Amino acid sequence: MEEIIEPRNLRGFRDSLPETESRKLDIQEKLTRVFRSFGFVPIDTPAIEYAEILLGKGGGETDKQVYRFLDHGQRDVALRFDLTVPFARFMAAHYHELPLPFKRYHMAKVWRGENTQRGRYREFIQIDFDIVAVDSVSSDFEIMTVMAESMRALGIRAFHVHFSHRHLFNELLQTMRLDGQFLPVLRIIDKLKKIGAEQVQSQLDELAGEKHAREILDFITAGASNRGTLEKLASRLSDDSPAIARLRSICRCIEDCGLEQELFLDPSITRGLDYYTGVVFETFLDRAPDIGSVCSGGRYNDLASLYTKEQLPGVGASIGLDRLVSALEDLGVAGDQKTAPEILIVLLDEALVGACHKLAAALRSSGLSAEIYPSEKKIPVQLKYAEKKGIPLAIFYGEDEMEKDIYNLRDLQQRQNHDGLSFPQLLERISELLSRSGKM
Amino acid sequence: MEEIIEPRNLRGFRDSLPETESRKLDIQEKLTRVFRSFGFVPIDTPAIEYAEILLGKGGGETDKQVYRFLDHGQRDVALRFDLTVPFARFMAAHYHELPLPFKRYHMAKVWRGENTQRGRYREFIQIDFDIVAVDSVSSDFEIMTVMAESMRALGIRAFHVHFSHRHLFNELLQTMRLDGQFLPVLRIIDKLKKIGAEQVQSQLDELAGEKHAREILDFITAGASNRGTLEKLASRLSDDSPAIARLRSICRCIEDCGLEQELFLDPSITRGLDYYTGVVFETFLDRAPDIGSVCSGGRYNDLASLYTKEQLPGVGASIGLDRLVSALEDLGVAGDQKTAPEILIVLLDEALVGACHKLAAALRSSGLSAEIYPSEKKIPVQLKYAEKKGIPLAIFYGEDEMEKDIYNLRDLQQRQNHDGLSFPQLLERISELLSRSGKM
Repeated sequence: MEEIIEPRNLRGFRDSLPETESRKLDIQEKLTRVFRSFGFVPIDTPAIEYAEILLGKGGGETDKQVYRFLDHGQRDVALRFDLTVPFARFMAAHYHELPLPFKRYHMAKVWRGENTQRGRYREFIQIDFDIVAVDSVSSDFEIMTVMAESMRALGIRAFHVHFSHRHLFNELLQTMRLDGQFLPVLRIIDKLKKIGAEQVQSQLDELAGEKHAREILDFITAGASNRGTLEKLASRLSDDSPAIARLRSICRCIEDCGLEQELFLDPSITRGLDYYTGVVFETFLDRAPDIGSVCSGGRYNDLASLYTKEQLPGVGASIGLDRLVSALEDLGVAGDQKTAPEILIVLLDEALVGACHKLAAALRSSGLSAEIYPSEKKIPVQLKYAEKKGIPLAIFYGEDEMEKDIYNLRDLQQRQNHDGLSFPQLLERISELLSRSGKM
Repeated sequence: MEEIIEPRNLRGFRDSLPETESRKLDIQEKLTRVFRSFGFVPIDTPAIEYAEILLGKGGGETDKQVYRFLDHGQRDVALRFDLTVPFARFMAAHYHELPLPFKRYHMAKVWRGENTQRGRYREFIQIDFDIVAVDSVSSDFEIMTVMAESMRALGIRAFHVHFSHRHLFNELLQTMRLDGQFLPVLRIIDKLKKIGAEQVQSQLDELAGEKHAREILDFITAGASNRGTLEKLASRLSDDSPAIARLRSICRCIEDCGLEQELFLDPSITRGLDYYTGVVFETFLDRAPDIGSVCSGGRYNDLASLYTKEQLPGVGASIGLDRLVSALEDLGVAGDQKTAPEILIVLLDEALVGACHKLAAALRSSGLSAEIYPSEKKIPVQLKYAEKKGIPLAIFYGEDEMEKDIYNLRDLQQRQNHDGLSFPQLLERISELLSRSGKM
């Protein structure tokens, strides 16, 4: 007897079983439809790249998490840890052959050797969409509408896209002569949703003094309406503030499109990364606030400066598929995925295998999904299989039925038989039963 | 000035640009529909696994090609090089929680450090589908019908699934008392399509003598019909041959379902791998014979014997997506992929950004795809963008039109204007123009 190898996964890696995998694919399909309806096109990049490309200047926290190794040719390579860096390299390599501005979406796996004790996984799917080679109100606003439309397409009604502009703070701190404290202030503000206003105030007190701390906290508190918030912000900054001008134009688009209920100007949004230079956004689900932002992004000045002298400003956002799946499950809108076909043809007689396959093909031509139990076993075994797989209907088609050209249909959920049907009657009855059980 | 990093890919790795990526996604979508209509369900497994799991007993040619390295925890890990080994591990880990027999499909990237001089790539997408935990005529036949249905779904009309049974040779060589020469004979036969009958005969001469060589060559030559081939094979083997019995049942299914033109009994098919133990199949495109088999597989005795004592016989096949894309391109059925949206809204005035987005949203609610040029540039620049992206229609909607509540539509392919349309007229005209150009 040979030794058995334990069929285990690496820590932080999971198999995706049919139900979960169907959910993930369903989400990707719905988002694909949204992206395409806005004119975004799909791309893909290799999972493995030169480490030099992926790590760039390097030195960040991410570096330690990157899967990096020497390949067969002793090249220093790594697995991608996000979809932004490969996109930057992609744009530097291909911008001359693409229609510019370029709108792409990319759904793919990324890998990070994160600490699994915090419930993190080391392999996950990211969904990114960006508009590059343009800096405009329209593209800022478009990314926000794609975010909103994506949530709607997934059946999420109660959500808010919170947005702000990264330069508001630069301008505010300038008026306070606190320009030098920009990043520390930002880092404190960024913790607002986690640690609360009181904690933020006390940390700001230490950094900037009590008066400024109060002013900053007031500044980042959103008003009842976008317009109100905007005017409050404007009153604190100089008349020709470019950040206010951009936000004003965006707010006007929001009003023109009647999206005030969904797109919410929230000056407390900063996004931690130095990377962003204009609008920034995060998306929260009203009924699952603890899960944090399910779709975030912003505007950047120059996507691919590491790889090309061509300046490529852009705006984009990213969805973490795994977090989104959890959120949908929590909200009960993940849906009962159609992992199962609609019909099981019970195999009553090995001699009828061909006839059963012919019947299955006829059902499929009518747009149904059907499978045949693959060997002649006792009927209870076959029906148990249907139950375990979640197949709602079974057809019994033996020699007798074949001779008389009739079909016996069983509704496995209602435990009800519909016998002696002609083929057209069979199709009709199937369609009735499926629409009744909400399967069609 | 900082130094620029050259935005290059690793040898053997490619970016997938929008047109190619759309083609790949389109194929995957069509195949998904086929698999689901037969009751196959999707799974996924991690890209990275313990090297011990992926390489098993190891020592094969594949081992040298595997991307293998130490992870952050100094674990010996590797990237998957096919979807069969991870599936075996998956089944060993999960068979008790799955409905058995289990029918899965899996579309995912695999990596092999192959010699790129032979035009091979090191990252490619495989599409596998299997039925495990059953050994039956119905499941053998089902995999063949899925192969045929997949080709049809991709618009390929002229194809043949060639099939045979791996035990035919064992039985034939037994009658010749050449059992010991099984693998060498198989290896020579396997080269038939590459080196031709004459070369095969001369190599067989050396191995088995002229008489046997002639008999073997005659044995593997298919007749005009499946029935004829079957009877010829049967006449050479013992009456109770299990291989002939299985093939006879499969041929009966083929006749019952009227698939004689597509599923072709071809005793020269052997499949190189020791792995297979029953039926084997390959799929050839009549009009692209040089490309070789685009979908191959067979029956195996025991999928997961390395990882569990549970015996899991099965049957399955695998499609190489990249090879299939080339084949479809060669055949001219790859299709003009809808990488572009249907409508570009020309941005005539920055003040109208919101109104243009509102119009785009209305078009999308009507099931159309529409984008707005993202900044106010000269009209020729905007139309040039539409042309480069392949957008067929443009809408001009300025202040004047907004006031009069009308829309000017331009057919960019016919260079024809349709001006002064109301919104319902606009929708109607768009639908006419798109159906005329075959875009809907």
